[in-house]
Amino acid sequence: MKNVDLILKSRWLLPVDASRSLLENHALVIHEGRIVDILPSADIALHYQCQQILDYPNHCLMPGLINNHTHSPMSLFRGLADDLPLMTWLNEHIWPAEAKFIGDAFVEAGSKLAIAEMLRGGTTCFNDMYFFPEATARVVDSSGIRANLGMVVLEFPTAWARDADEYLLKGQQLHDHYRNHPRITTSYAPHAPYTVSNKTLEAIIVNAEEMDLSIQMHIHETADEIDSSQQQFGMRPLKRLHQLGLLSPRLTAVHMTQLTEQEITLCADTGIHIAHCPESNMKLASGFCPVAQLAEHGINITIGTDGAASNNDLDMFSELRQTALLAKAVAANPSAIPAIEAIEMATINAARSMGIDNSTGSLETGKAADIIAVNLNELETQPCYDITSQLVYACSRDKVTDVWVAGKQLMKQRQLTTLDVHQIVDDARQWASQIR
Amino acid sequence: MKNVDLILKSRWLLPVDASRSLLENHALVIHEGRIVDILPSADIALHYQCQQILDYPNHCLMPGLINNHTHSPMSLFRGLADDLPLMTWLNEHIWPAEAKFIGDAFVEAGSKLAIAEMLRGGTTCFNDMYFFPEATARVVDSSGIRANLGMVVLEFPTAWARDADEYLLKGQQLHDHYRNHPRITTSYAPHAPYTVSNKTLEAIIVNAEEMDLSIQMHIHETADEIDSSQQQFGMRPLKRLHQLGLLSPRLTAVHMTQLTEQEITLCADTGIHIAHCPESNMKLASGFCPVAQLAEHGINITIGTDGAASNNDLDMFSELRQTALLAKAVAANPSAIPAIEAIEMATINAARSMGIDNSTGSLETGKAADIIAVNLNELETQPCYDITSQLVYACSRDKVTDVWVAGKQLMKQRQLTTLDVHQIVDDARQWASQIR
Repeated sequence: MKNVDLILKSRWLLPVDASRSLLENHALVIHEGRIVDILPSADIALHYQCQQILDYPNHCLMPGLINNHTHSPMSLFRGLADDLPLMTWLNEHIWPAEAKFIGDAFVEAGSKLAIAEMLRGGTTCFNDMYFFPEATARVVDSSGIRANLGMVVLEFPTAWARDADEYLLKGQQLHDHYRNHPRITTSYAPHAPYTVSNKTLEAIIVNAEEMDLSIQMHIHETADEIDSSQQQFGMRPLKRLHQLGLLSPRLTAVHMTQLTEQEITLCADTGIHIAHCPESNMKLASGFCPVAQLAEHGINITIGTDGAASNNDLDMFSELRQTALLAKAVAANPSAIPAIEAIEMATINAARSMGIDNSTGSLETGKAADIIAVNLNELETQPCYDITSQLVYACSRDKVTDVWVAGKQLMKQRQLTTLDVHQIVDDARQWASQIR
Repeated sequence: MKNVDLILKSRWLLPVDASRSLLENHALVIHEGRIVDILPSADIALHYQCQQILDYPNHCLMPGLINNHTHSPMSLFRGLADDLPLMTWLNEHIWPAEAKFIGDAFVEAGSKLAIAEMLRGGTTCFNDMYFFPEATARVVDSSGIRANLGMVVLEFPTAWARDADEYLLKGQQLHDHYRNHPRITTSYAPHAPYTVSNKTLEAIIVNAEEMDLSIQMHIHETADEIDSSQQQFGMRPLKRLHQLGLLSPRLTAVHMTQLTEQEITLCADTGIHIAHCPESNMKLASGFCPVAQLAEHGINITIGTDGAASNNDLDMFSELRQTALLAKAVAANPSAIPAIEAIEMATINAARSMGIDNSTGSLETGKAADIIAVNLNELETQPCYDITSQLVYACSRDKVTDVWVAGKQLMKQRQLTTLDVHQIVDDARQWASQIR
C-alpha cells in the first residue's frame, strides 16, 4: 500500500497516448505533481492510500489543451478593431495602441486576463510571443499555468527594446532567470521574415543550438509576405530561412497559409513543426493552411488561437473543432483530420513542438498531472455515441469543470483557485477606458 | 399611465433594426406578448405601471436567434457517425438508422432534445424539415418556442408516407391543424432536386401560391448533385428549378455551395433566399457557399445549423461566428460580412425568408417579444469596446441567461421553464441505447 497525494476517478479517460486508447472507469494516481499510475477505479483500494480521492462520474479526463501560438497580453485589445483590412487594422489600430500603452503593467494585466480565460477553457499550457515577457512570466509563475515564453526579436524599436541586440539580451535575461522553473520554458521568437534580418536569424540559430532551445516564428502568414520577400530577397521566405539553416525540428512555423507542394515536402524533410491558427487566418482572410496535406506528409501539426485581437477569444475547444472542420472543407474530404487527430494537435503534438513532451501533452505515467475534467452529462452532449467525436464536435469550453497543472488544482467546479477574476476584469476595464 | 405585463431594462439593447441602432440603458415594454414600446429606462415611471420590471445591468438584449435550417429530431443521431465520406455516412449509418427507428415517438423525443438545446443557446425560432412533423409541432406548441415546420415531400417511401401524394396529403393535414397557431407556421419542403420529380414540384408551386406559403429545399449542396442533374436532366439543378418556376421570393434554397457567377445573378433576380449552413458544409466537405458575393448581390442570406447528425450541435452563436469568419476566408477579404451583418442573417433575414418578419426577427414596437438576454459581464467578453463585435467574435451560447418567446419566459437564469431537461436526457439515452 502506497500513500499518494491525489486520485482522480472518472467515467472516461482519454490519455491521448500512442495507441489512442479510451479507458472507462479508470483512475489517475497523482503524487508530487506527477501521474504515477493509471488503473481501473475498482483496483484503487488494493494499491493506494489517499486522503483526496475525487470522483468524476459524468466526466472525461483528458490532457489539458495546449495553445501553441498566442500573444496573451493582447487580450486587452479584444474587439478593439474588427472587420478591417489587415494593414488598416495594424497601422491605424493595433500598432498605435501598442506604441502608446504597452509596458510592464499592461502586459501583466493582459496576461492575467488571458491566463484566466485559458484556464477557464481547459488550456493548461500556452506558447506566447510578446514584449515584456518577464511580466507574463510572473503571472505564469503565480497562477500555476505552464508556458513557453518567446524571447521576441525584431529589428525595430518598441517600448521593450531598441534593437535586435537589446531584444536578444533581454531574452537571455528572461531565459537565465527561469532556466530551472518547473513550468516555464523559453524559446527564441524572431517575429517574422519581414521584421528580422539574416544576421539576427543567424545569431538566433547559433544561440538556440548552444542553449538547446526551440524557435517560433510567424512564417508564410499572408500572400503579401511572400511578395515582399520576392522583392527584397528574390525568393520566398521559406527558401531564405532554409538557406540560413533555420528549418529544423527546433522550429515551429506559425500560420503557413501560403505553401506550394514543394514547400510542404521541404517542411516534412526538415522536420519543422507547424502552428495552425485557423480562426485568426479566417478572420484576417490570410489564406488556408493545407492541414490535411501537411498531415499526409507526417508533419507535426499543432494549434494556436493567435492573440485575442484577431480571434477574438482564446478558446482551444473552438479552435480544435475549427481545425477539424476547416481541414475537411479545404481538402474537400470529409474524412480529413478525424476528431482524435485534432485532439492530438491540441495536446501531445504541441508539447512535442516545444520539446516538453516528456513532461506534458498526454496522461501517462511519469508525466506532469496537467489534466482537465470535461462534463459530458449536459444536454448539449447527449446522447453520446463516441467520446472523441463529442469532445470535438459537440463540446465547448464551458463544459470544462476542473483543471490541474502539475497536480495543483487551478479550477475547481468552474472557480479559479489562484486568480481573482473580479480584480482581473476591473483591471481590464481600466485599461480599456484609457485605450478607447 | 398605462398598465403593462412586463418591462425589461438593460445596459445594452440591439434591436437589429434598419438603422442598425444600439441603445444604452433602454427598456422593452411588453404587453400581451408583444413589444409595445422601447424607451430610455429612466423614463419608464413617467409612462408605465408594471408588476414585473426585470433589470439586466450587465446584459445585451437582442432578438432571439433564428435557426433557418435544421432537422431537429436528428439530434438523437448526434455523433453517431463522423469523419466519414458523405455516401458512407448516409448509406451505412444515417439512412439505416432512420429506416429502423423513426416514428412519432422518436421524432417527439428528438424534437424535445433539439428544442431544449436551441432555447439554452438563445434560439427562439427554427425552420425544420423532417418526417412526422406533427410530433415536432406538439413539442413546439407545448415548449413555447416558435417554428416553421416543413411539409416534407419525397418520391420514395419512408415510415411517414408512401409516395409524393401521401407526403402532400399529410403536409396539408399538418398545415390545416396549425393554420391559426400563434407560433407555428408551415412551408413546403421538397427535399432536394434529386429526390423530387418535376410533376411533384409543379404541384407544390401551385399549392404554395394558393395557400400563400413559403418553400424550403436543399439545393446545390454538393458537386455530385450537380453532376447527377446534368446526367438526368441535361442541366444544373438551379436551371431546372427555374424552368419549373420554383425560383421566387417564396423559396429558401438551403446550402448553395456550388454556384456560378451567372447563377448568383439568377438568385438575385428571382429574389430567392439562401440558408447558409457553414459548419455542416465544412464537416461534410460539401463546398463553400460564396456568402460575400451573395451579399454584394443583395441576396437575403440566412443561417442554419443543419441537423445535429452533421454539425454536431444546434448552436447559432457558433454558426453566426462561423459565417462571419468563413465568408472572409473564402472571399479573401477581412472586411466581408462584418459582425452586424452576421447577426442580421441569424435574425431578421431569416424571419423575412419565412414571411414572418412582421412578427419576429427584430425588437421593434408591434412585434412579438422574442428576446434573449446575453451576459457580457464575464471574463471571456472583457474588455468590451464594441457590442456587436463581442456578440459575434467573443461570445458563446452559454452567455445567454434568459429567453422569451411571445413574451413568455422560456429560460430564466439558464433554467428552462417549460421543458424537463432530466427527462429529455433520460429519453435521449434510452433511444441511443437502442440505436447503438
